[in-house]
Amino acid sequence: MAIVDITVIPVGTGTPSVSEHVAEIHKVLREYDGKVKYQLTPMSTLIEGDLTLLLEIVQELHEVPFKKGLQRVCTNIRIDDRRDKDNTMDRKLQSVQEKL
Amino acid sequence: MAIVDITVIPVGTGTPSVSEHVAEIHKVLREYDGKVKYQLTPMSTLIEGDLTLLLEIVQELHEVPFKKGLQRVCTNIRIDDRRDKDNTMDRKLQSVQEKL
Amino acid sequence: MAIVDITVIPVGTGTPSVSEHVAEIHKVLREYDGKVKYQLTPMSTLIEGDLTLLLEIVQELHEVPFKKGLQRVCTNIRIDDRRDKDNTMDRKLQSVQEKL
Amino acid sequence: MAIVDITVIPVGTGTPSVSEHVAEIHKVLREYDGKVKYQLTPMSTLIEGDLTLLLEIVQELHEVPFKKGLQRVCTNIRIDDRRDKDNTMDRKLQSVQEKL
Repeated sequence: MAIVDITVIPVGTGTPSVSEHVAEIHKVLREYDGKVKYQLTPMSTLIEGDLTLLLEIVQELHEVPFKKGLQRVCTNIRIDDRRDKDNTMDRKLQSVQEKL
Repeated sequence: MAIVDITVIPVGTGTPSVSEHVAEIHKVLREYDGKVKYQLTPMSTLIEGDLTLLLEIVQELHEVPFKKGLQRVCTNIRIDDRRDKDNTMDRKLQSVQEKL
Repeated sequence: MAIVDITVIPVGTGTPSVSEHVAEIHKVLREYDGKVKYQLTPMSTLIEGDLTLLLEIVQELHEVPFKKGLQRVCTNIRIDDRRDKDNTMDRKLQSVQEKL
Repeated sequence: MAIVDITVIPVGTGTPSVSEHVAEIHKVLREYDGKVKYQLTPMSTLIEGDLTLLLEIVQELHEVPFKKGLQRVCTNIRIDDRRDKDNTMDRKLQSVQEKL
């Protein structure tokens, strides 16, 4: 199980606002309900699931601003992939909180 | 007001666990209560405040694994800095949620 | 044409050195000679080509440390994708250098 | 000695081109000739030097698009900091190339 942290930055929009694109991204993610877990944070979107599927979703999310007519998109992704134990978003948070 | 998204990855630990270092980072952040707002996510730590202070804190957090004896640290930072309106973590989340 | 900038960080190696993994990644990339362009920098590996293929390669490169027995890998990716004109590594460098 | 890898993305520019801002960033860096080493790559700018100085420079580079009138800047930074041996850009490249 991998977790992907993604930000999709449209370049050349004419407006400094990006929330419209982020909302659109979350509408796309709803189609994957039951297949992946996802979470909006103030800085990015986190998605948990099978890595091959996650990278397919990454590409689909990266396309979102292009579909709105944008000509350039800079996407930033962090993948955290741990295979010796269950690597879930809940587990990671809990593991830190137990040590605080 | 800027928001910083930071991950501090210790390299050469001998164990794939990093939660101990993340917990330590949040103990350091507690000393800044009242000066910055911060939030733990499953993938990183978000900190909101004055950018000069945020970058000082970034350096302090980056030092945490070295203080535990590690020899190499890879830190990844995203800065989101918007100056035409209040750019807070709450505001950003709300702005997306209103469009969903 | 997209450009991907990738760093693959093995976690829990016991040694702060990662050059062995980076060299292995470049051996994998050689199999794509003629299909993508790639370049090693002191901080990451840049790959230029069709985005769908680039993301397949990203996943393959992310697997490299796991094949060596590692249990956790943190991969960081930046995608730069511009569609109004040819977005190549050479063109980008040239475009900046002309303005210096 | 640390190495910083920085991309400064102006948001809300009205044009998908960012080379003007990158050129400006390199003009700022010239003022630090002799204090830090830096290198332009097709995807980012790499800077090598003392970490405290590097973070001061990061903040100065992040300000560049604001000085041109932009209202939002998203800056992405990777820090690689290794203290058991000399961690220079040349050394890192060489270390990988010896293994190819």
